[in-house]
Amino acid sequence: MLILGCGSAKPSARHFPSAQILNIHDKAYLIDCGEGSQIQMARFHVGYRHLDSIFISHMHGDHVLGLPGLMSTFCLLGRTADLNIIGPEGLGDFVDFINKTFCKEKTYKVNFFPVLDDCVSKPVFEDKTTEVYAIPLRHRIQCYGYLFREKANKPHIIREMTDFYGIPYYAYNSIKDGKPWTTEDGEIVPAERLTRPAEPPRAYAYISDTAPSHVVAENVVNVDLLYHEATFGKDNIKRAEETYHTTAAQAAEIAASCHVHRLIIGHFSSRYKDETPLLEEAQAIFPNTVLAEEGKTYTI
Amino acid sequence: MLILGCGSAKPSARHFPSAQILNIHDKAYLIDCGEGSQIQMARFHVGYRHLDSIFISHMHGDHVLGLPGLMSTFCLLGRTADLNIIGPEGLGDFVDFINKTFCKEKTYKVNFFPVLDDCVSKPVFEDKTTEVYAIPLRHRIQCYGYLFREKANKPHIIREMTDFYGIPYYAYNSIKDGKPWTTEDGEIVPAERLTRPAEPPRAYAYISDTAPSHVVAENVVNVDLLYHEATFGKDNIKRAEETYHTTAAQAAEIAASCHVHRLIIGHFSSRYKDETPLLEEAQAIFPNTVLAEEGKTYTI
Repeated sequence: MLILGCGSAKPSARHFPSAQILNIHDKAYLIDCGEGSQIQMARFHVGYRHLDSIFISHMHGDHVLGLPGLMSTFCLLGRTADLNIIGPEGLGDFVDFINKTFCKEKTYKVNFFPVLDDCVSKPVFEDKTTEVYAIPLRHRIQCYGYLFREKANKPHIIREMTDFYGIPYYAYNSIKDGKPWTTEDGEIVPAERLTRPAEPPRAYAYISDTAPSHVVAENVVNVDLLYHEATFGKDNIKRAEETYHTTAAQAAEIAASCHVHRLIIGHFSSRYKDETPLLEEAQAIFPNTVLAEEGKTYTI
Repeated sequence: MLILGCGSAKPSARHFPSAQILNIHDKAYLIDCGEGSQIQMARFHVGYRHLDSIFISHMHGDHVLGLPGLMSTFCLLGRTADLNIIGPEGLGDFVDFINKTFCKEKTYKVNFFPVLDDCVSKPVFEDKTTEVYAIPLRHRIQCYGYLFREKANKPHIIREMTDFYGIPYYAYNSIKDGKPWTTEDGEIVPAERLTRPAEPPRAYAYISDTAPSHVVAENVVNVDLLYHEATFGKDNIKRAEETYHTTAAQAAEIAASCHVHRLIIGHFSSRYKDETPLLEEAQAIFPNTVLAEEGKTYTI
């Protein structure tokens, strides 16, 4: 995961607004698309071609205003692959307006998937390797976090065993799917003897913008990496409450109670000229916390 | 004049898209508003409050997609002063859409002035100190350059002369307006004897995006400073023709033929990793040329 922007609504010279790239098995997903996302992609050498799908949390400018530029750049570059855009219902009108106004020479198709009420119980998006769930957040307008769950990987063939039984390559896929192998002598070899378990599937959760939320807590248990907004420190807890945001300490409490493996805090208010106090505040509760940083890659 | 962005449509790590700030007598005008303009304003310490009016050349994304972010930031900061926006007719729908979608808590009023067909013959915008004319350009869609003309300054009072005649302060304004002074003895002193001429009014022209145009040439004669796009060098003249852009040599020819005082070239294609060849190409024809540079201020 690569951070393109981790600032909040008020522009600052230190941060770009929210955007990040999640790479899973050669596909890239963009999560939120604040103003300047395409400029940051150029700066950090993110290929525009690999971008498969865009997930938008909510319709505040600092999370979505990079979309018109990126969509018109795709036209300029002659993109032909479909682009999936997932987000709250109001996003559909915005996408239509962009298409009509800034993508006059259409070269690619946009598939818009609105997030619906049953988003927690079934994926809002799914492809060969990944399921994505939306998590309703507590913000001033309709707003969603996203949970990316890798699908269960298939087990690995143990070559010594398949060689021993003389099993041909074409049978590998069915064995990976759990089917037994019958030898010429009629011996039935269970798939478990021929394979070793795959790595456990990984999970990443992106949570911004929200007041502390038990719905978030219920849905990010045990994730490998949690990005949680920490717009303020506890010095500004009143302001956080008023604006439906989270403090660094509150983000860390969620990470600790949900047994996540690692926490990244971001979406920093422009009032902080140095976020070290936010980091220290979070680490006091959940030591395995780092600050989001533009241009930095976090391996899951 | 401060450059915020001098790149062209394809995003690059080296330049932001078109935007510049023109300061005239304590007021700031924004000319074009490419994506990231508000981020550049924060970076270069341009106060959001002084921004009085925004002039948009045309509805291509790299000239206008910073507007939603800036307009929503004005709401966030509680701006109360009216904001003037001047541009092609299609811009009005975009401004309405932004207002509806991203400025829900309106704190200020937007006055939109569409540029009309008679734009060369009368100002599209006027305030106490400045007249602004639009210049129709030759681009793929409706597109305008802008010519900023300082209004004639009033002449300066010669204090030695007003003291000699015992002329009171309250009469200064009428003398500056050219009215004679009548002494107690009935002597009529013409205003010209009591004043010396003001500095000549200054003029700045912003020309982007366009194929070389005689309409431009007719309207920028003798300006103090001309910003002219030079998207390409003569190595890419075919591409310049196809896309309705100008080469550095062509921009310099216009500057030379129009006797402008100084030329800035900008709107560089992202294919150039170093624009020195464009500068050399222009300087061979018009020596008083400089390259546009983000963050640099040019005094007129």
